[in-house]
Amino acid sequence: LATPADAAPRVVEEAGQAGAKAAIVVSGGFAEVGRRDLEEELVKSAGRHGVRVTGPNRIGVYNAFNGLDTMFLPAEKAGRPPPGPIAFLSQSGVLMTAVLDWAAGEGIGVGIAVNFGNSSDVTESDFLRHLGEVEEVKAVALHLEGFRWRGDAARFLEAARAVKKPVVVYKAGRGADSTRAAASHTAAMAGSYEMYKALFKQAGVVEVDDLVELFDAAKALAVYTPAKIEKVLVVSSSGGMGVQITDALNASGLSVPELPKDAQEELRKRLLPIAAVANPVDLTGGGVNEHFGAALEVGLRHADAAVVAALIHPPGYGEKAADYILSAYEKFRKPIVVVSFGGSAQTKALEEKLRSRLVVVNTPRRAAKALSAVAFYGSEVYHRGYEGWYKHKGG
Amino acid sequence: LATPADAAPRVVEEAGQAGAKAAIVVSGGFAEVGRRDLEEELVKSAGRHGVRVTGPNRIGVYNAFNGLDTMFLPAEKAGRPPPGPIAFLSQSGVLMTAVLDWAAGEGIGVGIAVNFGNSSDVTESDFLRHLGEVEEVKAVALHLEGFRWRGDAARFLEAARAVKKPVVVYKAGRGADSTRAAASHTAAMAGSYEMYKALFKQAGVVEVDDLVELFDAAKALAVYTPAKIEKVLVVSSSGGMGVQITDALNASGLSVPELPKDAQEELRKRLLPIAAVANPVDLTGGGVNEHFGAALEVGLRHADAAVVAALIHPPGYGEKAADYILSAYEKFRKPIVVVSFGGSAQTKALEEKLRSRLVVVNTPRRAAKALSAVAFYGSEVYHRGYEGWYKHKGG
Repeated sequence: LATPADAAPRVVEEAGQAGAKAAIVVSGGFAEVGRRDLEEELVKSAGRHGVRVTGPNRIGVYNAFNGLDTMFLPAEKAGRPPPGPIAFLSQSGVLMTAVLDWAAGEGIGVGIAVNFGNSSDVTESDFLRHLGEVEEVKAVALHLEGFRWRGDAARFLEAARAVKKPVVVYKAGRGADSTRAAASHTAAMAGSYEMYKALFKQAGVVEVDDLVELFDAAKALAVYTPAKIEKVLVVSSSGGMGVQITDALNASGLSVPELPKDAQEELRKRLLPIAAVANPVDLTGGGVNEHFGAALEVGLRHADAAVVAALIHPPGYGEKAADYILSAYEKFRKPIVVVSFGGSAQTKALEEKLRSRLVVVNTPRRAAKALSAVAFYGSEVYHRGYEGWYKHKGG
Repeated sequence: LATPADAAPRVVEEAGQAGAKAAIVVSGGFAEVGRRDLEEELVKSAGRHGVRVTGPNRIGVYNAFNGLDTMFLPAEKAGRPPPGPIAFLSQSGVLMTAVLDWAAGEGIGVGIAVNFGNSSDVTESDFLRHLGEVEEVKAVALHLEGFRWRGDAARFLEAARAVKKPVVVYKAGRGADSTRAAASHTAAMAGSYEMYKALFKQAGVVEVDDLVELFDAAKALAVYTPAKIEKVLVVSSSGGMGVQITDALNASGLSVPELPKDAQEELRKRLLPIAAVANPVDLTGGGVNEHFGAALEVGLRHADAAVVAALIHPPGYGEKAADYILSAYEKFRKPIVVVSFGGSAQTKALEEKLRSRLVVVNTPRRAAKALSAVAFYGSEVYHRGYEGWYKHKGG
């Protein structure tokens, strides 16, 4: 019985005869199920007329800038995100669709998404190099299960260095059980996770631990200019969340030092008598929207970045808190990550206002990881090798 | 200038004269800002007429069963969750409000929420013991910044053992910067995080690392019967997500072993030819809703629990996948945690259907942590000391 996979080599060859330059092969049923022979035949047939094969076992491309969309799914099944500065490279096809649907719901702008599947011919490194040349793309988020070919690691190293923009990688398939699974999914090579970790370090890319962190970091790197981050200001309307954020920052190696005495005295005058002014700054549940502005204005003079816990449930707070946070961002141009937690209409309105400009997350860990990514690309260690690359961001 | 805090001792004493038995003191401005004297006066004044003080510096109580709600906030600012089997004990007040608002949005049932604040008189252990006696409460989620009094650790140990239901703890204030913050927030004692960790272990409670995990674990323990979990079945419509779930389970010490050959053969017949049948089982993007049912029915005969990645974006899937997952749950009564990722109407409908019965999360890490909590209370190690306690769950 002929499967779609069996027909693919002939179809691609005919397309080449008709003048096609590239093929997206959607069908599965190649190397990932043991049919390496069929995959070799596919690439060979395509090559006869100079066709480059992407896939097989891939869903293709989504390009919000020019409207190209090979997912062929209605919006009620799979939302499409607004155009934005993030490019997403996904080894998995269904995953790419789900991620775009999620990003649409979260209002995360994604300009280009590419699923590379089995990498029979064109590989992740080829796509990465290409994205380096797309002006609108400011950061690349890569989901990788594993390399396919001998030499892919070296090619990745070269490509990551050639691409003068931030790259964030989430490597899935880390343990014994999942490496077995990745092999049957995209025919990815085994190879130890430690090898990949070392490679990412050498390539100067940020590594994260799940898809949510992948997009948090990519967005942070797309919207904030990489900066050296030594001191972080924490401002909260909930002391409880301020404590948690401080924990998470510390766990990520970022410091939340006490503010200088004169800054504390100034805050003492501008905030409530029961407010905590040392850092983390706790406006308390009795505060008002303006206090976010005051705390950021005073605190950011002495810090490289801020994390704001904007829990606007107490009576004195509301979505207008967003305006004060955005004003402070305009003024200082230092990274401000916002932690919002809730489900009410008011909370959603606040998030909507903020996320066009800032990274908005719902856990302290996510905030710390996003800020760490910015710090990574802003660190001296990194710049020693790549001085000036981030000017390409235009940020 | 007299603050609300200054007036509190007199007000509480007068209330006691008038016959009050307990007081919720909302005002801050006591030990957390250095006014230990005022707090002592408060407790002493209350004691003259036998009034027990809860707080100060607390927002009070939410009881979905009897309608008691001392948060005094409109629903558009702060949603209230539906009544449910989880009780939430929060050291922080604004945090409690935000968490309830979040739980309302996520459809997580919370029966009782208590903010204990400064613990000047009644402490977390008193509330914990009380919740042990409330029939409707099946699991307790505790947010703790730190103990307040000498002897609190021993009291907690006793209370946690006396409460014959699962307790999940999230300890905030773990590092140097945040311990300073916790002191100024709820006057919590310093004490090393390691000390707390050891105590939680001794007390036989589950520990987690953020608020989201806190509720995932509490819900899992409220809806699933604790069980020994050695082998986990992973079923996915997205091989990419299946790989990630397997990683997360492995990282949490849970195993995803290959299914027996005969089970694989049966799956080979019932699923697509390109499906992966070893475990993780990958239905692939070409599958249909029924395949979730087939994979769970065959796989759960050989596993203690399952994690299902229900990404229903490909054409053959839809929200009806939920029915097959729920049927399998009815049949086997083994824990099934669902990972859903997306933002479309269809994805939301699927989640809505599932979450009335099952734990539904958006990351593999959350799924693994929730299942770990069930495994913890189902482990022999635990039962050696507490045999039979979980019968109280009525599960």
